[in-house]
Amino acid sequence: MATKAQLRRSQSSKVEDNQQIARKEKFLSDCKPIHSHADSLFSTSSGFTNYYGILNLCFILLVLGNARLFLENIIKYGILINYSYLAEWFLREPYNWPNLLLTVSIVIFPAIALCTEKLLAKGKISNSVGVVIYIINLTVLLLFPAAVIYYLHPVIVFSIFTLGNVTICFLKLISYAHVNYWCRENYANKRLKRRSSSGNIADDQSANNAVNKTLQSYPDNLNVRDLAYFMFAPTLCYELNFPRSARIRKRFLAKRVIEMVFLTWLMVALMQQWIVPAVNNARQPLEEMEIFKMLERLLKLAIPNHLIWLIWFYCFFHSTLNVVAELLRFGDRVFYKDWWNAETVSEFWQHWNIPVHRFAARHIYKPLLNKGFSRLMASTIVFLLSAFFHEYLVSIPLRMFKIWAFMGMAMQVPIAYITSKFVRGKWGNITMWLSLILGQPVAILAYFHDYYVVHSLPLHTNSTT
Amino acid sequence: MATKAQLRRSQSSKVEDNQQIARKEKFLSDCKPIHSHADSLFSTSSGFTNYYGILNLCFILLVLGNARLFLENIIKYGILINYSYLAEWFLREPYNWPNLLLTVSIVIFPAIALCTEKLLAKGKISNSVGVVIYIINLTVLLLFPAAVIYYLHPVIVFSIFTLGNVTICFLKLISYAHVNYWCRENYANKRLKRRSSSGNIADDQSANNAVNKTLQSYPDNLNVRDLAYFMFAPTLCYELNFPRSARIRKRFLAKRVIEMVFLTWLMVALMQQWIVPAVNNARQPLEEMEIFKMLERLLKLAIPNHLIWLIWFYCFFHSTLNVVAELLRFGDRVFYKDWWNAETVSEFWQHWNIPVHRFAARHIYKPLLNKGFSRLMASTIVFLLSAFFHEYLVSIPLRMFKIWAFMGMAMQVPIAYITSKFVRGKWGNITMWLSLILGQPVAILAYFHDYYVVHSLPLHTNSTT
Repeated sequence: MATKAQLRRSQSSKVEDNQQIARKEKFLSDCKPIHSHADSLFSTSSGFTNYYGILNLCFILLVLGNARLFLENIIKYGILINYSYLAEWFLREPYNWPNLLLTVSIVIFPAIALCTEKLLAKGKISNSVGVVIYIINLTVLLLFPAAVIYYLHPVIVFSIFTLGNVTICFLKLISYAHVNYWCRENYANKRLKRRSSSGNIADDQSANNAVNKTLQSYPDNLNVRDLAYFMFAPTLCYELNFPRSARIRKRFLAKRVIEMVFLTWLMVALMQQWIVPAVNNARQPLEEMEIFKMLERLLKLAIPNHLIWLIWFYCFFHSTLNVVAELLRFGDRVFYKDWWNAETVSEFWQHWNIPVHRFAARHIYKPLLNKGFSRLMASTIVFLLSAFFHEYLVSIPLRMFKIWAFMGMAMQVPIAYITSKFVRGKWGNITMWLSLILGQPVAILAYFHDYYVVHSLPLHTNSTT
Repeated sequence: MATKAQLRRSQSSKVEDNQQIARKEKFLSDCKPIHSHADSLFSTSSGFTNYYGILNLCFILLVLGNARLFLENIIKYGILINYSYLAEWFLREPYNWPNLLLTVSIVIFPAIALCTEKLLAKGKISNSVGVVIYIINLTVLLLFPAAVIYYLHPVIVFSIFTLGNVTICFLKLISYAHVNYWCRENYANKRLKRRSSSGNIADDQSANNAVNKTLQSYPDNLNVRDLAYFMFAPTLCYELNFPRSARIRKRFLAKRVIEMVFLTWLMVALMQQWIVPAVNNARQPLEEMEIFKMLERLLKLAIPNHLIWLIWFYCFFHSTLNVVAELLRFGDRVFYKDWWNAETVSEFWQHWNIPVHRFAARHIYKPLLNKGFSRLMASTIVFLLSAFFHEYLVSIPLRMFKIWAFMGMAMQVPIAYITSKFVRGKWGNITMWLSLILGQPVAILAYFHDYYVVHSLPLHTNSTT
């Protein structure tokens, strides 16, 4: 009996034990080891490279930093934006709005060009007479408004606008003359061909008619309507037959117009609120030539200036040119390429302003290459011409002939040459941005300083104009 | 003859014509049309999405913007960094360095814990007696240094450091007790198993010996050397056998030590130069409770504060903990995961502080789940405990019991719950960053304001301390 009871007790204790074991084993599964051999993520040996979140951080810091600057500015200066002041400025422009009159008067020069082309087409004047007329016409176009602005010195902003229109008209007329010259040569060539392969004239003509049913051909293009279209079209390169879009997209047009109006307002507001105080506060450091304060002012100017430049880029090259193109049903909307990804200086210049780039390539660079110039020589000439027009746009309205704008453009050739040797890829892109961000405010401060020195204005006043 | 001459002339003119045609054709190949139908890149219809260069721009603007702030700060305040002042501060700490004495005295509490474990292992006291001893031991550990600091109020920074060490010791001893308890249960379980499957005891033991030749097993781990290693190891979770690295890598160690020294210097310098003036300048807006100025101050504080926090994160979680681990040949270097990519608040808390996260998961969250608590309830308890320790670290050195730190942590549960419902992906990551960047300076300003109010210090003085 005693043994049986013992056995039973031992058995029941075994069952209890097994239950306990099962219960404990579940519990003990929680306390398995949790440490194991592993590297920290920042150690290069870990091979970890996913820092995607850091990009978001950069973006946030940028927004917050600028939000603070914005608040600081408002607290310090209050609201400086004042549009009635601008309207007054415009209405009070001295000498009965010379800029508006000059802009309207530009129409004379394309008219003369059209007459000249008609005479050339009919063979009434020779090519060399045509060239002389063009040279006189274009020289007057460049010099007459410049002289008027220089002697009447109206409001600087409007003067720059007028001279911008003059420059555009100048380049368009050169393209017009060049293309019509090609067409005349082509026309003569065709007549030669016809003479050399005489017999199948009739066939040739009928085929020509079938293809060119809707297309214009020389000299039918020499009419007011065609030239007027080209003068307003968002391109500097003349063609007899521009690609045309099927219809005006009203939604697209409305969006671009709203962008245009809002961004123009924003630019003027940012300039009044942000650039004007920053430039005015730079007077004292400029007068005293203190290096650290000047550097601080330069950086304070660089960021808003760059933001305004970016807004201006979008507003002009995307919104405005697309509005013009949409209204004219102009098909080619490549006004800019992806310059923001440019990895060399020359890539930037080839991508950011496509109308000017196309003009320079078609009417200056390639003809120079055909004449036997080297590539470096040809691009140097292109940049020197560009430098001349930059200087033209700035010096005459400011009435001072400093060479900052000219040098800024002319230096691009050696800069492009040197940077393409040493920096590439990501660092090339960063170099491109840095030269954009820092180059412009240096030029602005240089002109600002010289303007005050040349016109003997006091640099040390603190009034906010 | 006349016909022959005519024919010859006509033939020679044909040859000339052909030469001319060939020459012209080369020339005319240059004037092919250059315009074609195409959309602008910014138009959505273009399908263009490569804005890689814009990222570089953001990066540059960030660097330039902060370089300017740095210059502005130096021009405005001069160099405020002063290390001799800090050394003086340390040497003059009142009442003979209570913080140093307190930090050294912490060693008593692990000693008591070790004695208790030894008694428990030998079965001389029961589990419940052990729990009582632990509760007394840990309560004294938490309260004694806090009381000393509260009544002697030494330098605040050193007090926070002391209480940090107290907290770490507290958590480590809880883990030590918990793991040893598991081991005792396991040990008892094994004896049960052996009893239930009696006969193959010898086999079992020999197998055990073969596997565990180099590994420690309970109760051999209960010695001073093992506990001391755990107390210094960069982890809060006790284990009988930590993974160990083969040797101390001297180059790695040197790099981390240099980082540690340099980054600590940098943090103190940035605080003296950037945070102290920003906080001092916030006094007047805080006193007057002007909303715009306060917002401006908040943003002015947010960015340097966040940069210092990032430096502190790297300096502590990468450099310092890796130095400690390298010296102790501690194998597990996962002190942080990629919290910068976190897309929800809870992911951030699971990834940024791995020692605390592992402790909370192993010793609080999972045991609570095993006891039948819901996931939400368990994580709420974890965050409330974390909130308690945050408050403990701040309130006692500052001698004021506001609930900002406690609320900051306690709010994480509802914030995590709400944000996980509404924001995900990229916007979740941005939300995470914003709460980090803006949450901390709000807390700093709140404590700063209350500190001046509670201790009746003048908010309107402009002296820079």
